[in-house]
Amino acid sequence: MYKAPVEEIAFTLRHVAGLGAGLAEGRFGDLSDDLVDAILSEAGRFASDEIAPLAEIGDRQGATLKDAAVTTPPGWPALYRAWAEGGWNSLTASPEHGGQGLPHMLHVATMEMWNSGSMAFAIGPTLTIGAVEALSAHGSARLKEVYLPKMVSGEWMGSMNLTEPHAGSDLGVMKTRAERRDDGTYRIFGQKIFITYGEHDFTDNIVHLVLARLPDAPAGTRGISLFLVPKFLVEADGSPGARNDVFCHSLEHKLGIHGSPTCTMIYGDGRFGEEPGAVGWLIGEENKGLACMFTMMNNARLAVGMQGVAIAEAATQKALAYARQRTQGRAPGWQGPGMSPIVEHPDVARMLLTMKALTQGARAITYACAHAVDMSHATAGDEARHWAERASLLTPVAKSFATDVGVDVASLGVQVHGGMGFIEETGAARLYRDARIAPIYEGTNGIQAIDLVTRKLPLSDGAQMAGLVAELRGIAESVGASNDTAFGETAARLASTLDDLQAATDWLSTALAEGRQADALAGATPYQRLFGLALTGAYLAKAALAEAGDGRKHERIALCRFTAENIIAETAALKDRVVTGAASIAAARTLLD
Amino acid sequence: MYKAPVEEIAFTLRHVAGLGAGLAEGRFGDLSDDLVDAILSEAGRFASDEIAPLAEIGDRQGATLKDAAVTTPPGWPALYRAWAEGGWNSLTASPEHGGQGLPHMLHVATMEMWNSGSMAFAIGPTLTIGAVEALSAHGSARLKEVYLPKMVSGEWMGSMNLTEPHAGSDLGVMKTRAERRDDGTYRIFGQKIFITYGEHDFTDNIVHLVLARLPDAPAGTRGISLFLVPKFLVEADGSPGARNDVFCHSLEHKLGIHGSPTCTMIYGDGRFGEEPGAVGWLIGEENKGLACMFTMMNNARLAVGMQGVAIAEAATQKALAYARQRTQGRAPGWQGPGMSPIVEHPDVARMLLTMKALTQGARAITYACAHAVDMSHATAGDEARHWAERASLLTPVAKSFATDVGVDVASLGVQVHGGMGFIEETGAARLYRDARIAPIYEGTNGIQAIDLVTRKLPLSDGAQMAGLVAELRGIAESVGASNDTAFGETAARLASTLDDLQAATDWLSTALAEGRQADALAGATPYQRLFGLALTGAYLAKAALAEAGDGRKHERIALCRFTAENIIAETAALKDRVVTGAASIAAARTLLD
Repeated sequence: MYKAPVEEIAFTLRHVAGLGAGLAEGRFGDLSDDLVDAILSEAGRFASDEIAPLAEIGDRQGATLKDAAVTTPPGWPALYRAWAEGGWNSLTASPEHGGQGLPHMLHVATMEMWNSGSMAFAIGPTLTIGAVEALSAHGSARLKEVYLPKMVSGEWMGSMNLTEPHAGSDLGVMKTRAERRDDGTYRIFGQKIFITYGEHDFTDNIVHLVLARLPDAPAGTRGISLFLVPKFLVEADGSPGARNDVFCHSLEHKLGIHGSPTCTMIYGDGRFGEEPGAVGWLIGEENKGLACMFTMMNNARLAVGMQGVAIAEAATQKALAYARQRTQGRAPGWQGPGMSPIVEHPDVARMLLTMKALTQGARAITYACAHAVDMSHATAGDEARHWAERASLLTPVAKSFATDVGVDVASLGVQVHGGMGFIEETGAARLYRDARIAPIYEGTNGIQAIDLVTRKLPLSDGAQMAGLVAELRGIAESVGASNDTAFGETAARLASTLDDLQAATDWLSTALAEGRQADALAGATPYQRLFGLALTGAYLAKAALAEAGDGRKHERIALCRFTAENIIAETAALKDRVVTGAASIAAARTLLD
Repeated sequence: MYKAPVEEIAFTLRHVAGLGAGLAEGRFGDLSDDLVDAILSEAGRFASDEIAPLAEIGDRQGATLKDAAVTTPPGWPALYRAWAEGGWNSLTASPEHGGQGLPHMLHVATMEMWNSGSMAFAIGPTLTIGAVEALSAHGSARLKEVYLPKMVSGEWMGSMNLTEPHAGSDLGVMKTRAERRDDGTYRIFGQKIFITYGEHDFTDNIVHLVLARLPDAPAGTRGISLFLVPKFLVEADGSPGARNDVFCHSLEHKLGIHGSPTCTMIYGDGRFGEEPGAVGWLIGEENKGLACMFTMMNNARLAVGMQGVAIAEAATQKALAYARQRTQGRAPGWQGPGMSPIVEHPDVARMLLTMKALTQGARAITYACAHAVDMSHATAGDEARHWAERASLLTPVAKSFATDVGVDVASLGVQVHGGMGFIEETGAARLYRDARIAPIYEGTNGIQAIDLVTRKLPLSDGAQMAGLVAELRGIAESVGASNDTAFGETAARLASTLDDLQAATDWLSTALAEGRQADALAGATPYQRLFGLALTGAYLAKAALAEAGDGRKHERIALCRFTAENIIAETAALKDRVVTGAASIAAARTLLD
């Protein structure tokens, strides 16, 4: 059973992501070290003791639909209420609306724990928090007054309605339409698919944020508006009133996250209400809906990255526990009586260390990204712009690398279990199934790579990227300067990986500058992976260099060395793929006709 | 829907694996090119038209157990009978027992197609064929007379009973016991788990091959005997008679291959028969059971490798079909109206080409292994020993590389589908689930790596391996000598990969010679992967060099180049891991305590 790695999380926040320095500099108001520890510890308890025990039944029973009403798995509505009452929904929201105004770093750290407990459960609240962000940033005073306090407290949940059957990665072609009414409201008509927690029994009301197109809107992504559409219209006293004309038509039968209802939502077909049309209120300006969505897109992508970290952590714990108790064969050097625990076999140890290294790397990257978000709010002017760019740059890597790690580590977790891994009751298979959606939703990892290469590398004319690489080189140099032989070849390996990152970055910049868009895009995914591995190597070295005084420095150095000597050497091949891949893909293109 | 790639399969058999030369030299009796084509074509039709359409219902409904009787999915018993009546079960069996005596290459080629159609269906017949091999090689004349004709025709199926709760990879600790009876029979008592098709409704009788221990047997693997235990005892006229004391106690709830019943089998608890004890007959000699099993172990491992190829092929076809019709966004250079098919996006093209390259590499390796098996039977003396060694050397690579490819390609297949990939009805998720068992059963891929490094590399004092590497170098040199610029950097990349293979092989040989067993085992899995990639690069080059006169040479060259420039560069990092991994794993070992 999952046990939240509270110490590891706290260490990574403080010594790798930068929370320690931020607190020392007083960047985060009166937030204290003690409060951070108290929050993480209590979140860890809730995730381990309350959420994790309900993960399996959620997977087995899933969510069910009858007469447009969704029933979540047994115990889940109560679990959600306990979670909301614990104040976990309001961690980062503004105190103005009842939130606690805490740094985003604490949000992602707790998010990791909820998702390790049960990804299917945690995805719902994640979306509410995204809806709160969008509404806070762009909603009218009246909308905020009516909806935000209840959404911040968790009394009502939110949902995000973007995708349509023909509009997934490309939202420009969506068809859901909105009509203006004289009273300033709108009526929404259309169908949305893949709507996570679009309907459920957790809360009395659900606040749908819906992208739709006005009749006179420009074509493409510049003609999309964002609307708030509550499941129940709100009475003057703030309570849920008449049912709005929106309902869940069907649930998807999915590979994983079975407890999470994935809904097809029908807006405005007349099933509810006096006349067809779901009543909606505009958020932000007309035709600026996508910009409003982008406000929260980065954070949502980071949240999905956390799911990758969370799955990887849960899978690693489960595999390690099994490998310690399962005995089979005799490992070289085994002195005990009878068979050795399989963790003693070098090949199994390699799998487990790889799982640990990738998990810790993904965690460090996602936390560093959250730190940049926090710093962009805690600073002003050029400094704030620097940190906003940093967050922007790291987001696609955090999302894609961590979610790929989630899949890879969950797959290794199945492998460590041998035949038992294929049996559903063991739980390793559930993680392998759940993990698979994270590289897809909130922008596939391929979309992240396009974003990284075409929009993020050029930030500040490449200076943001250059600054990051310089920081990473500084870490490699510190390892060399430490003269600690326990680091093995870390300094040289890391330097070589950073050379690969630099060379690939330069090649892509040139390709883009020369208008060779297809060439750059052909290398985007290998580049993104290279970037993630380079950050992993550097951040594990940063962790190993830190003096936390907790007696675990030698373990961190050992993991850093294992990573440097076993994981990051792959970057040379990835750089190769970036640089030479486009021509060979173009040459082989006819094979796909 | 899957369509068997008959031309690709025939090409690979002839021009890469060596069937063409074998036929030209008259190695395979009166087998003709025409007959090969007829067999492959009819197998392709059966797999595509009969098996594939029943895959989804098999997955959805699975196998069920009631009162010790297993019901397979609707349509499956009739499908099995049609398959057996088609003569597909008897392809490679000896004509003496009603078989067709065809080369093993045709067996693996058809096996690929059955498994692409439905892995859950195909795994049952695979095991029968393994049982036929073991019985043919080691059974008494009487046992062969009674059982073989019906098992060869497919009238009865076989099952393989090895695993017990505490005896998986390490069979030496198994507890199932056998007692001698005065009439020369034995009574078997014990529990076996993970028994594929241990019980079902395909046939009137099931012939279980069971490993058990005699009371006076030596400890460990030298005290295990092999028994034949029929579900129904056979009457004098050859028909099934009284029920034997063996039954299926429960079915596993698995991640994938749901249609395949995975049984816990109880032997000798008195549920059936006059006195407790399942009646069994010894196969081979007492205490030599494991050796009998090893007779068929190589072929069984190769058969599982075929499952990896099969899943990869099915996943690639499905993803490619989707990518051609799904439109989203506008790819660079897209001139058409509206959105482009996603196959036009370079990143999607990269995924699909990677899927094609890995599938074709895994196919070539497995077929080459089958060719070596055939040649070991078609030759004599030193030549036969050479080919037997070649088969032995390639088997762990074929099993592990192809099954890892199955998982990786199925995962890419889900990714290409985007959100639809996560929906079970699409079918991509089923392949991702089914694929995951193949790296585990018939010896985990970690066990394969140990076998490869400690038992296969030393064959003929390393000369077998050296000979293979020399052959592969010859292919690289032929590419260089072709002076065909369409190969891009293939010759140089392949030479570099073969240098990596050579260096890693030398390092492992030295480690073993110096008694550094743990060091060698720590690098075994990266080495095995390196080996598979080197073979992939070389065999795709061999395919590209072949003159098949089918107008597809330029496509093969393009795929070869893509592979050389994008896939096999990974070998440098893998060699690194072999050479430096052991020390860093040992240093980090305390992290796993």
